[in-house]
Amino acid sequence: MSENPAVAIVEPKTPGNIGTIARAMKNFEMDDLKLVNPPEFGRDSDAYGFAGQAREDVLPNYDEVTFDHLVENYHTVGCTATTNEDARKHRRFPFKTPAELADSLRDVDAPTCLIFGREDNGLNNDEMAKVDEVCSIPASEDYSSLNLGQAATVTLYELRELTVSETQHPDVERERAPENEIEGFYEHFAEFLDTIDHPAEKREKTTRLMRRLLGRAHPTVREVRTLRGVLRRASYHAADESRRGGE
Amino acid sequence: MSENPAVAIVEPKTPGNIGTIARAMKNFEMDDLKLVNPPEFGRDSDAYGFAGQAREDVLPNYDEVTFDHLVENYHTVGCTATTNEDARKHRRFPFKTPAELADSLRDVDAPTCLIFGREDNGLNNDEMAKVDEVCSIPASEDYSSLNLGQAATVTLYELRELTVSETQHPDVERERAPENEIEGFYEHFAEFLDTIDHPAEKREKTTRLMRRLLGRAHPTVREVRTLRGVLRRASYHAADESRRGGE
Repeated sequence: MSENPAVAIVEPKTPGNIGTIARAMKNFEMDDLKLVNPPEFGRDSDAYGFAGQAREDVLPNYDEVTFDHLVENYHTVGCTATTNEDARKHRRFPFKTPAELADSLRDVDAPTCLIFGREDNGLNNDEMAKVDEVCSIPASEDYSSLNLGQAATVTLYELRELTVSETQHPDVERERAPENEIEGFYEHFAEFLDTIDHPAEKREKTTRLMRRLLGRAHPTVREVRTLRGVLRRASYHAADESRRGGE
Repeated sequence: MSENPAVAIVEPKTPGNIGTIARAMKNFEMDDLKLVNPPEFGRDSDAYGFAGQAREDVLPNYDEVTFDHLVENYHTVGCTATTNEDARKHRRFPFKTPAELADSLRDVDAPTCLIFGREDNGLNNDEMAKVDEVCSIPASEDYSSLNLGQAATVTLYELRELTVSETQHPDVERERAPENEIEGFYEHFAEFLDTIDHPAEKREKTTRLMRRLLGRAHPTVREVRTLRGVLRRASYHAADESRRGGE
């Protein structure tokens, strides 16, 4: 994507939901908020109360627009809990899940707008007929309707790999200990089994078990070194013990 | 997983967040809500106002517990926006993203509890030191702190494949038209190019373009048949036109 998607809310009734969505936009680096026929809300409303740091920029910078303005100027994605059952009806079918949407928008260079509907009944059939794509969050068939703010949060979250330049997370790949450190631990562990007279017929199996356990956990350098420190100290005491036993 | 995870909130201040989380639990088929030192909230509070249909079951059935009760009885996952930078500090490192958590919990058979902290500063260091795993949502490094209710919603959403038995969505795989229907369309399209005297040297390229376009869109039976209907009608008129031209 060349620019991050705009986010539009059609006729929201609750200022709190506007604030919630503005906050999620800032969490996932979107900043272009469009409102179709919004309620009035001031600085002391729930819109500002729920917006977190988005109260400083995303929220006050919103544009009031018409639905048709969105259709005419953007590649539009209509978000809805209610999809059609199958291909016999086309307003809400086929649809993409948010994860599928993220995949497909990766290569789209056009200005894109995600459109969310009213708290009580979402986007109506006329509106759905005008959007370019349908997006729907998979949820329990017993209760598939997420709250507006929550649905938008999940959708924006799923687009994060397209929109967020740097997350707060360190580069985790880098943190797995180098393979030679980890192998060094396994050797150390085998020696340790020797030191503590672990039954010879069990040693291979126990070493393999440790390899599986640590392999799954992707240990950091610090974890590997701490474990080796424990082994070293335990070996020292075990050796000491056998010396004492030999006295 | 043998049973769906419990969800705990530690010292929430805002009843609305409790309701929001109860709703997300019901959306993703979790029902065991634990509250540590919650505020008082009644049937007319935001907790019930924000809970949607969870006001009937998940919310009123919550248990009030201590943090230590959770640690002693569950495989605990502490959820936090704030991770440690690297392996030098261990309270908040290593961590998993919610997607990684879903992968790793798939094979865990123990009762599991997701723990969310206070609105203002989450779980404290003492609490984080006691949990078994750390989970953190990747977000913008400029503003990585999601609202409590939104963070829980994203995390529960990511666990949906472990917790939700049936979503509201139809089985989409089934809806892609059978390959022979789609191939039939390409043949029909090639004939159509012939009918309309599309320049011979461009036909192969145009057919290939159509194959790429439709292939990406995974057309339904209805879409393929509608397109063939359009081609048929257009061919009829084109042929008619050439008959008239020949009169």
